[in-house]
Amino acid sequence: MKLFKAKPIDIEAGEPIVIMNPQDTAELGIREMDRVHVEIHGKNVVAIVQESKTMVAPGEVGVILKLQEDLNLIDEEQVNIKPAQRPQSIELIKKKMDNLELSTDEIYMIVHDMANRNLSKAEIASYITAVYVNGMNMRETKDLTMAMVESGETINFGDRDVFDFHSVGGCPGNKITPIIVPIVAASGLLIPKTFSRAISSAAGSADIMESICNVTLTVENIRQITLEVGGVLAWGGAVRLAPVDDILINVEYGLTVDPHSQVLASIMSKKKAVGAKHLLLDIPTGHGTKAPDEETARKLARDFIGLGEEIGINVECALTYGGQPIGRAIGPALEAAEAIAILEGTTGPRSVLEKALSLSGIILEMGGVTRNGYDEAASILKSGRALEKFRQIVEAQGGKENITASDAPIGQYNKQVMADKSGYVNFIDNRSVVKIAREAGAPYDKGAGLLIAKKGGQPVEKDEVIYTIYAEHERKLKLAESLARRLRPVRVENMVLDRIPMIKKL
Amino acid sequence: MKLFKAKPIDIEAGEPIVIMNPQDTAELGIREMDRVHVEIHGKNVVAIVQESKTMVAPGEVGVILKLQEDLNLIDEEQVNIKPAQRPQSIELIKKKMDNLELSTDEIYMIVHDMANRNLSKAEIASYITAVYVNGMNMRETKDLTMAMVESGETINFGDRDVFDFHSVGGCPGNKITPIIVPIVAASGLLIPKTFSRAISSAAGSADIMESICNVTLTVENIRQITLEVGGVLAWGGAVRLAPVDDILINVEYGLTVDPHSQVLASIMSKKKAVGAKHLLLDIPTGHGTKAPDEETARKLARDFIGLGEEIGINVECALTYGGQPIGRAIGPALEAAEAIAILEGTTGPRSVLEKALSLSGIILEMGGVTRNGYDEAASILKSGRALEKFRQIVEAQGGKENITASDAPIGQYNKQVMADKSGYVNFIDNRSVVKIAREAGAPYDKGAGLLIAKKGGQPVEKDEVIYTIYAEHERKLKLAESLARRLRPVRVENMVLDRIPMIKKL
Repeated sequence: MKLFKAKPIDIEAGEPIVIMNPQDTAELGIREMDRVHVEIHGKNVVAIVQESKTMVAPGEVGVILKLQEDLNLIDEEQVNIKPAQRPQSIELIKKKMDNLELSTDEIYMIVHDMANRNLSKAEIASYITAVYVNGMNMRETKDLTMAMVESGETINFGDRDVFDFHSVGGCPGNKITPIIVPIVAASGLLIPKTFSRAISSAAGSADIMESICNVTLTVENIRQITLEVGGVLAWGGAVRLAPVDDILINVEYGLTVDPHSQVLASIMSKKKAVGAKHLLLDIPTGHGTKAPDEETARKLARDFIGLGEEIGINVECALTYGGQPIGRAIGPALEAAEAIAILEGTTGPRSVLEKALSLSGIILEMGGVTRNGYDEAASILKSGRALEKFRQIVEAQGGKENITASDAPIGQYNKQVMADKSGYVNFIDNRSVVKIAREAGAPYDKGAGLLIAKKGGQPVEKDEVIYTIYAEHERKLKLAESLARRLRPVRVENMVLDRIPMIKKL
Repeated sequence: MKLFKAKPIDIEAGEPIVIMNPQDTAELGIREMDRVHVEIHGKNVVAIVQESKTMVAPGEVGVILKLQEDLNLIDEEQVNIKPAQRPQSIELIKKKMDNLELSTDEIYMIVHDMANRNLSKAEIASYITAVYVNGMNMRETKDLTMAMVESGETINFGDRDVFDFHSVGGCPGNKITPIIVPIVAASGLLIPKTFSRAISSAAGSADIMESICNVTLTVENIRQITLEVGGVLAWGGAVRLAPVDDILINVEYGLTVDPHSQVLASIMSKKKAVGAKHLLLDIPTGHGTKAPDEETARKLARDFIGLGEEIGINVECALTYGGQPIGRAIGPALEAAEAIAILEGTTGPRSVLEKALSLSGIILEMGGVTRNGYDEAASILKSGRALEKFRQIVEAQGGKENITASDAPIGQYNKQVMADKSGYVNFIDNRSVVKIAREAGAPYDKGAGLLIAKKGGQPVEKDEVIYTIYAEHERKLKLAESLARRLRPVRVENMVLDRIPMIKKL
């Protein structure tokens, strides 16, 4: 134990770091990544040591923002520093590296240490890598899921049946959520839908809805609006529902890996935390999606259903076609407009309509509303009840009253891209479409994106418009145009090779 | 591309980090862990993005010390920021996670990115975890070793045969290096010995030698002294010999793992860089060492010999007994004194003497000096030539002229620990001995440590001294005493169970 002068350092770090001079660490017999107890005012925190010769002199210890708060530290006070044990989680991560099964207690301990920010990013990266390589069995995955749920807040709807829906993702233009939720809510079922923002895509459901209303709600908002209106469309990142998931996803993103058991636990923990009892999972399959072939998709479905049984959620899965963009619009406001137009009864793209009605229909059947869900969903939509429900949700979330498709703030700059020959559209590359929309500003610029005029299998004449790029800034439009010239996301060939059915039902 | 006001931030980070406001990262469509190009003055560096709401305002970018230098940045200048590709190494790490063999080019690329600090600690942790779980074959290990060699400086002794020696470690009190090097040098062979400081032990060779002379030498010092005197005893961490090794060892330490192929590459790259053509490897086996059983030790030996063949180093291995401390002294100055006393011809502990002569002898035989290395080594020692050579080395490294055992600065505070009954010493716990020496201040306090009076198999009377604790500070002596009472590192029993031979020759 030694006294140090605390030097407040205004770093926000995801890790509880103290910064020490190498001379002091040598004297204390510790190194970078070791832990120390920091004591002052009767408070004691465990921090991870980082060394610096320039930030702190010998005898000083740099204390980052979060720890300053935890310790009630006021400027240069004296703190006690002494070596501490490492979290036991580090041994448990090594156990997973050695391909051993982790017990329930061990998994809870790892999740607890992550939730309390006791682990460094390097340690979490090692955990993710070990789980990626060695996997987890269903018992471990169940414990992981429940530990993640218990690491944060949960919403309780009491005895009410609660429904939820999730798209596993990987397919651009998938704006079905703002159509499904109001249909389901209009049928009388509760559906508190939370979702994420785009990470590598052009628009997540949160970005789409945020172009027309507020999505940053509290847990109590979500509960209230769901009970009052029947449904909600909220950003999951704003609430502490299974917050460990956000820590893990950040590191996974850095490493570009998605361990299978972590994907299962990630999705299911959010659903459990929101109080869902019935879940429909949309698993798009096809080139460029997370389940590129049907076998992978079916395996994923089985695992979700199995995990659901373990944690008390009744899961059904729909394998859907995701080989080309869903609908014509890619980008937040463009997708919002397309979804609202469909709710308004405008003849929108058949792929969006069919997918939304099929999936809504399955939920209605799961909820015992009808035995013919598709037709019932179509009837709710046609009657205008879905549009009305959507408007109620948007208003409850601080959006415009009686919103219409034309209210979506689409970028004022646009550029039409023409076919350079006649033929058929035989391939639309999901990844290129997303890259162009992002170059145009999506998802940050809500009005940016792409509107596809001709989709797979459609005939096209030379100089006909095949798609239009939208942007909020002229400079970004130019950048997107130039990228589009290089990527050529829509391939026009002289012959249709095949016509692929839009929807596969389970 | 966007212009930002650069805000110099005096953080030393092992990673090339820029700090950005989340608003800006959202607009650029990037996240934490993504890379950006930072451009100014015609210079361009790639940095890893970290987000902070408090350190930088929107429109500002925080630039850490190393990048300020790389960019010649003077206070708040305007820099260009645009998204950059991630290093390809991240894909290659994923390839190793997927248990695929990495090509020569791929391994060089990973090492290059580490050497240039292009990878975050989390990414390096993921690499180490993947290599730990999936391993590397001999071809990959060879490429890894050579890539690590080529990442730093190398020493060239031209046509001269160069010898080296390395203890794989895990055994306390192993002060044979300061005895072996002068014997070998006195025989006319060149032995430029570099070594590390203690990490978790009570004294590395660097700590032992540092108690009596300077060990922080340059590459040119090491070459000159070796050519002039025949040998050198230098700290490897001060020179850029296979510097990637130091980066990896830091992260391995944090994760408490030593991937097998990384251990091989780590040791052999340092030897190759120093110009060694012949290497004797000491592999202690026994409870608490890195090779706890003989089978593990033999496997390790085979792998080192195989890797040596691949990279042009003639390797021999000696499996040695490491089940209890070597000699009686534990701690930098205590070990220096014990080693010098042996060079002076004092009857020191048989275990140290035998081990040093056996190993020196093997090196003399490898060098063709004699066919009976043990006797030749003993004769060099007895003649006083080894002591004279040791004194030359110490002087060349700035130490005292004609150094003697009594020059080693042993701590002024000491406490004798007595046997509480009569019997035989039947077990000395390596780990407890090290913990007590460290509590007393070793390796930072050079004079701190333990002197064991009674070793395994020796009879002891009640109230006889079994060991003495030394410290430079009274406070630390008290702490070590109290730890010693709890750990009881030397067990006295009523009967000797067995007497274990000190040395096993290969």
